[in-house]
Amino acid sequence: MIDANNPALESWVEVPENSDFPIQNLPFGIFRTPTNPAPRMCTRIGDFVVDLAVMNYLSLFEDLEIDNDVFTASYLNDFIQLGKTKTRALRNRLSNLLQKGNEEISNLSWHFLHPIDKVEMLLPIKVGDYTDFYSSIEHATNVGCLFRDPENALLPNWKHLPVGYHGRASSIVASGTPITRPNGQTRPNSEEPPVFGPSKLLDFELEMAFIVGRETKLGQSVSTTEAEDYIFGMLLFNDWSARDIQSWEYVPLGPFLGKSFASTVSPWIVTLDALDPFRVEGPVQDPAVLPYLQYEGKHNFDIALEVEIKPEKGAGKVVSQSNFKFLYWNICQQLAHHTSNGCNLNVGDLCASGTISGKDVNSYGSMLEITWRGTKPVQMPDGSLRKFLHDGDTVIMRGHCAKNGVRIGFGEAVGTILAAH
Amino acid sequence: MIDANNPALESWVEVPENSDFPIQNLPFGIFRTPTNPAPRMCTRIGDFVVDLAVMNYLSLFEDLEIDNDVFTASYLNDFIQLGKTKTRALRNRLSNLLQKGNEEISNLSWHFLHPIDKVEMLLPIKVGDYTDFYSSIEHATNVGCLFRDPENALLPNWKHLPVGYHGRASSIVASGTPITRPNGQTRPNSEEPPVFGPSKLLDFELEMAFIVGRETKLGQSVSTTEAEDYIFGMLLFNDWSARDIQSWEYVPLGPFLGKSFASTVSPWIVTLDALDPFRVEGPVQDPAVLPYLQYEGKHNFDIALEVEIKPEKGAGKVVSQSNFKFLYWNICQQLAHHTSNGCNLNVGDLCASGTISGKDVNSYGSMLEITWRGTKPVQMPDGSLRKFLHDGDTVIMRGHCAKNGVRIGFGEAVGTILAAH
Repeated sequence: MIDANNPALESWVEVPENSDFPIQNLPFGIFRTPTNPAPRMCTRIGDFVVDLAVMNYLSLFEDLEIDNDVFTASYLNDFIQLGKTKTRALRNRLSNLLQKGNEEISNLSWHFLHPIDKVEMLLPIKVGDYTDFYSSIEHATNVGCLFRDPENALLPNWKHLPVGYHGRASSIVASGTPITRPNGQTRPNSEEPPVFGPSKLLDFELEMAFIVGRETKLGQSVSTTEAEDYIFGMLLFNDWSARDIQSWEYVPLGPFLGKSFASTVSPWIVTLDALDPFRVEGPVQDPAVLPYLQYEGKHNFDIALEVEIKPEKGAGKVVSQSNFKFLYWNICQQLAHHTSNGCNLNVGDLCASGTISGKDVNSYGSMLEITWRGTKPVQMPDGSLRKFLHDGDTVIMRGHCAKNGVRIGFGEAVGTILAAH
Repeated sequence: MIDANNPALESWVEVPENSDFPIQNLPFGIFRTPTNPAPRMCTRIGDFVVDLAVMNYLSLFEDLEIDNDVFTASYLNDFIQLGKTKTRALRNRLSNLLQKGNEEISNLSWHFLHPIDKVEMLLPIKVGDYTDFYSSIEHATNVGCLFRDPENALLPNWKHLPVGYHGRASSIVASGTPITRPNGQTRPNSEEPPVFGPSKLLDFELEMAFIVGRETKLGQSVSTTEAEDYIFGMLLFNDWSARDIQSWEYVPLGPFLGKSFASTVSPWIVTLDALDPFRVEGPVQDPAVLPYLQYEGKHNFDIALEVEIKPEKGAGKVVSQSNFKFLYWNICQQLAHHTSNGCNLNVGDLCASGTISGKDVNSYGSMLEITWRGTKPVQMPDGSLRKFLHDGDTVIMRGHCAKNGVRIGFGEAVGTILAAH
């Protein structure tokens, strides 16, 4: 049995220093190329995409008993549906095939290696249901201070359950998809009637999301102990938000059109297995949570996150440096809560974390918080100010773990704002 | 061209008086039989299910150019995806084949007619995204009186936009599926910590839903004038709600586990074409709505609705008689609002109306309103009282239109409450 996470492993593929994709990562994605526009499965190593459909055609996975169709599917759902025994076996096999010394395979590499800049990465998952949590105490506190009462910023339920809501699955798009500024109804002046037009307060939200890897039946609950068996992996998630549309529409039933115009995911699903070395303790939960939300072990992950804004012309600026480990509610608690009422999960469901903010202003995960609702604009390298996002701005989210000389990353979730229709 | 809605049409299939399914209806569904458990498409006439896969096999639709696979699909999505030209052509053909005088076809009927009590009706649609609106002014006012301020029952946004939120698609189930009482976190006493256990305030919500029949691209908006081109048909919808879970969790991001344990749909999708004769004016909207929500023509429908509760033993009682025509916001306004920010729609998306209440207490669409939050219990025929639903209770929703001697109905959306796990 190969340990795909072994820090000593090296690949015969050259991996640049500080790459997110050493042989210890081996995430999964869907890509296509100009010469073969059919979507198909891949992994990544260094600056190369590895075509798994071709590797399979070369009989390199023959004994793994995975249908050929899985490798040429348009989404990873069928692969993930196979279960962790088979998905782990494939990742271990890839680790074996790509490690240094495997000259026989490297001689075949022109068949299945593509430079990353010659391929198009596609949406990796057909998302069934998308749930957005609200699990950062710093974010919830900031929002409470901004919109409600700084003395009672957290609502009474917040420390008792991982607040969440249903999001729109249809508008989840691949990294690189342009984001058109939404039109919508807003009420800039509460003494005047509402108006309709382009959102003036367009924002990002720095989030991560987990992908459900195993279905549950209606009526079935999953404990915090079992939860990770139902989680395949994670990716970066930009929950684009039109603050002015949201603030007018959201009482009493929650966000709707202020969010549903688009959400951007990074192209690679990094497996929970690859993230295993980067587990850390979560924040102490006080008051103690109810038994169904209690957990054992480490279920937070030390994942450094950042957000860069690049104007249409000129240099970009990193406006946020946060960390996934800050989350008050971990993914096992989220999943246990989600299923506590018997709600059924399907493979490919996506559960996002909510905006991940830290304690300091440079770790806040949205422009709403960074500029404190526009009162403290960010100065860009070209001298221009940002309260919220401008047309032409590109937002780039990045995330990676690093420990003992191994760096496991997520790549980027990128979107450029286009002017409203 | 056959006019499938012609009141003079009669079928060679006997249709009982007051049937929801005369030849003028011809809704679509998915069924299976004990001898052939493969799901397949059907329509209904009187007390018979009409097997469209067999009719297709008998070459009765040959010139309609519909793939065989469409008739044997597990859901109606592929059929609806064909577009209204083809779906109308099939409905018109069925009207022709089933009308009196078509002896040639009636002689073949033993091939494709099944008594309704010998078949199992299945979930007709694979729902992509499910949206729930909140479009009854009487319901929103009642909820506002119960939970907020009777003097300002409607929130400031309510008359300016059709408030809606994203619901959980995975737990939408076919009529007849038992509903397990959900467990969840509640806080019955705000001076005490929250508790976890079976919901004590389990409720129905009387709703209808439309099914999206034509996809839109991300960034595309649909006007109120175009909206009906994107709507295939309608069904009954029971948005089961655990009021105690909902009231503790829903601030600030809306309903989540209080709803996501199950929603029940009726088995038949009645086409907008079949509902055409029953159009009525909607309520006057004052203040005037923004231009993107203004509309011309009649887009409300006069559909009588009722809810019956049947205890495990003893007689049932009709606890609500309402009407779809009461809705303040019509389906065209809902769809135009939904796409006003560029949110994309897929065929099979389901948009529910929100609870449909009328002005009188006997037309309220939920136990919350009927019993005024439990303060005015309903007496059942056996003398027992209902504040909310009991284990063993069966909730049956029904809906039909009637005019000029033609009755077009939806059948029933049924669910029986099982004790919590």
